[in-house]
Amino acid sequence: MNYEAQLDSAIGKLHEEGRYRTFIDIERQKGQFPHAVWRKEDGSEQPITVWCGNDYLGMGQHPVVLAAMHEALDATGAGSGGTRNISGTTVYHKRLEAELADLHQKEAALLFTSAYIANDATLSTLPKLFPGLIIYSDELNHASMIEGIRRNGGAKRVFKHNDLADLRAKLEADDPAAPKLIAFESVYSMDGDFGPIKELCDLAEEFGALTYLDEVHAVGMYGPRGGGVAERDGLLDRIDIINGTLGKAFGVHGGYIAASAKMCDAVRSYAPGFIFTTSIPPAVAAGAAASVAHLKQDQALRDLHQERAKVLKLRLKGLGLPIIDHGSHIVPVIVGDPVHTKKLSDMLLKEFGIYVQPINFPTVPRGTERLRFTPSPVHGPQEIDHLVGAMDNLWSHCALNRAEMAG
Amino acid sequence: MNYEAQLDSAIGKLHEEGRYRTFIDIERQKGQFPHAVWRKEDGSEQPITVWCGNDYLGMGQHPVVLAAMHEALDATGAGSGGTRNISGTTVYHKRLEAELADLHQKEAALLFTSAYIANDATLSTLPKLFPGLIIYSDELNHASMIEGIRRNGGAKRVFKHNDLADLRAKLEADDPAAPKLIAFESVYSMDGDFGPIKELCDLAEEFGALTYLDEVHAVGMYGPRGGGVAERDGLLDRIDIINGTLGKAFGVHGGYIAASAKMCDAVRSYAPGFIFTTSIPPAVAAGAAASVAHLKQDQALRDLHQERAKVLKLRLKGLGLPIIDHGSHIVPVIVGDPVHTKKLSDMLLKEFGIYVQPINFPTVPRGTERLRFTPSPVHGPQEIDHLVGAMDNLWSHCALNRAEMAG
Repeated sequence: MNYEAQLDSAIGKLHEEGRYRTFIDIERQKGQFPHAVWRKEDGSEQPITVWCGNDYLGMGQHPVVLAAMHEALDATGAGSGGTRNISGTTVYHKRLEAELADLHQKEAALLFTSAYIANDATLSTLPKLFPGLIIYSDELNHASMIEGIRRNGGAKRVFKHNDLADLRAKLEADDPAAPKLIAFESVYSMDGDFGPIKELCDLAEEFGALTYLDEVHAVGMYGPRGGGVAERDGLLDRIDIINGTLGKAFGVHGGYIAASAKMCDAVRSYAPGFIFTTSIPPAVAAGAAASVAHLKQDQALRDLHQERAKVLKLRLKGLGLPIIDHGSHIVPVIVGDPVHTKKLSDMLLKEFGIYVQPINFPTVPRGTERLRFTPSPVHGPQEIDHLVGAMDNLWSHCALNRAEMAG
Repeated sequence: MNYEAQLDSAIGKLHEEGRYRTFIDIERQKGQFPHAVWRKEDGSEQPITVWCGNDYLGMGQHPVVLAAMHEALDATGAGSGGTRNISGTTVYHKRLEAELADLHQKEAALLFTSAYIANDATLSTLPKLFPGLIIYSDELNHASMIEGIRRNGGAKRVFKHNDLADLRAKLEADDPAAPKLIAFESVYSMDGDFGPIKELCDLAEEFGALTYLDEVHAVGMYGPRGGGVAERDGLLDRIDIINGTLGKAFGVHGGYIAASAKMCDAVRSYAPGFIFTTSIPPAVAAGAAASVAHLKQDQALRDLHQERAKVLKLRLKGLGLPIIDHGSHIVPVIVGDPVHTKKLSDMLLKEFGIYVQPINFPTVPRGTERLRFTPSPVHGPQEIDHLVGAMDNLWSHCALNRAEMAG
């Protein structure tokens, strides 16, 4: 068996398809977000502006977050030193879980090392708790949900994206007595469109199904206290399990679910991905708790975020660029080809100091390769001007069509 | 469908079996390890000594680690803000990967958010890279390895723990041309016994199999630079993929694999658990890199660790307690019943301020429930005296047999 040749072939395939990923090595500068330094392969440096990060509100440089982290480091040290069960539960973890339960108006919350593992571990554990469970999953659900749903080979039905009729047909086709769960997202991160949460909850109620909502790209940013789209729409009490992240709008790291006390207790007790892993560092939990608490009160930051996204979309539309606009904070510009997308990204970086990573398969379907911009409150008029100018220039230079693929 | 009744039943089962887990809420005090404060349900506090942590060397309070973390927080903020591909690769991540590749004398290393996900993601991705791969897995491998091996339904053979004859028989029974991988650990964390690494590598060579070694409970602690048992035994070049953690002896958080550049590149490119998750915070990477670098040079700390473990084992053996001793740093005392184990743990905590969590199924097989002590360089003669006295007292008080289950 020639293992090396197999690896060559696996990597070669990515090069051939133009979707081999090259990581850009950056260092953001606290207090200067979105400005950062790009460290090149040859060791030289270039100042850049980050336009593709998921620290959507710039909370990663917020003084209350950093102060909480410094303080916890000084009080209790670097790591937690254990799994949650074996010496890895601290007052910081408990406080953060209480903040999150309150945020989503649920009885409890449960921390994981990431929202990826929160989805994976929870969705793969639910069939153990509800034998015979059928999971109905939106076809554009995040990879972590797909992995969790597939893991134990339980029954699953994939319904067309946001398609209530398709979901209804699938629910009707199954045994009415079977335990069921409908899994979906509030903001789909690659198109920036919203899930029809209320209608999905109505279907769940009609068919006696549990609801599982991934709010990873919404927590902190939507709802009067940052509780997500379900909070904004007054639907929190209709969601059984909410999944969220501490690594995007909250600016730190880690993930969680929020649910009833019994649900959290059962997942806590049965999910290997929760049980057998070292808990997040106390300082990380402290920073995240400070961020969640702050954003419960900072509506002005949320408003500025939406304002910046609107301005960027308006200006890119003004140039006739093929942007997708579903009214969220995410601004995708469709290029439709992995090689072109990579080339545009390279030119933006090298010639304009604008960092936006190309988004290729498998993150998005082939043929919809894109640049995905994430304006934030720290992206001011100057940064927007610079980006819009660069895009206009490059679009002409590359003779790309305008607006042909707009959604 | 009564979901609530199902949850009641799942949780009730744990109570009935005496293995419902109650997390103890603690705060370690930097500079005072292993001393900590136990925050009780009623809000009152009691000073305790942590005897079950996996911060095996006390690095979580080391000044070089904390300084590196404070510095990175000030320079670059709280979180990384993205996946490794999308703005989440920083100089801190690159430096840490270089430290780890050097530690294990491999071409490359790849960071994950935990060693759990490193095992799960890597082992579930290898069958994609090597179609038809058969994975031979030690029956006592960690839950994260089992989950990764099971995930995609690839071919697996579970061999008896450390049983070379059983493994050979299984290798002989399979197609000689099939790609193969043998997965095992260097230190099994619950018994503290070692895997026969050299003999396993010999078998791998004979049958043309790749080797996958989990060194999670060995990195930092074994080998002249903390490279693990494979380094100590001069076997690094015979291991294809090494898995390690930054959350135990290195005292911080996160996990990794170290392997050839091509292997890391392929896993990096194909593993959803790597691709679709926010990278660890730069400050965490900075702290871990400082810890790894420090432990490459601090043999005295490793020596003291082993010395403390020897002393504790000697003294518990002197009392005739049923300890398992395979010459590692882990000191398990077998109780053999979940209810007794929990009771002993409760009494140690409440009456003696000694915190050692009961270890029950599924972490260990039923009937081998235990207290698992983890002496470290910060557990001095006073702490050992106190523990030994308490154990002697409780063993008499509970009329438990001495030495009957010793391994």
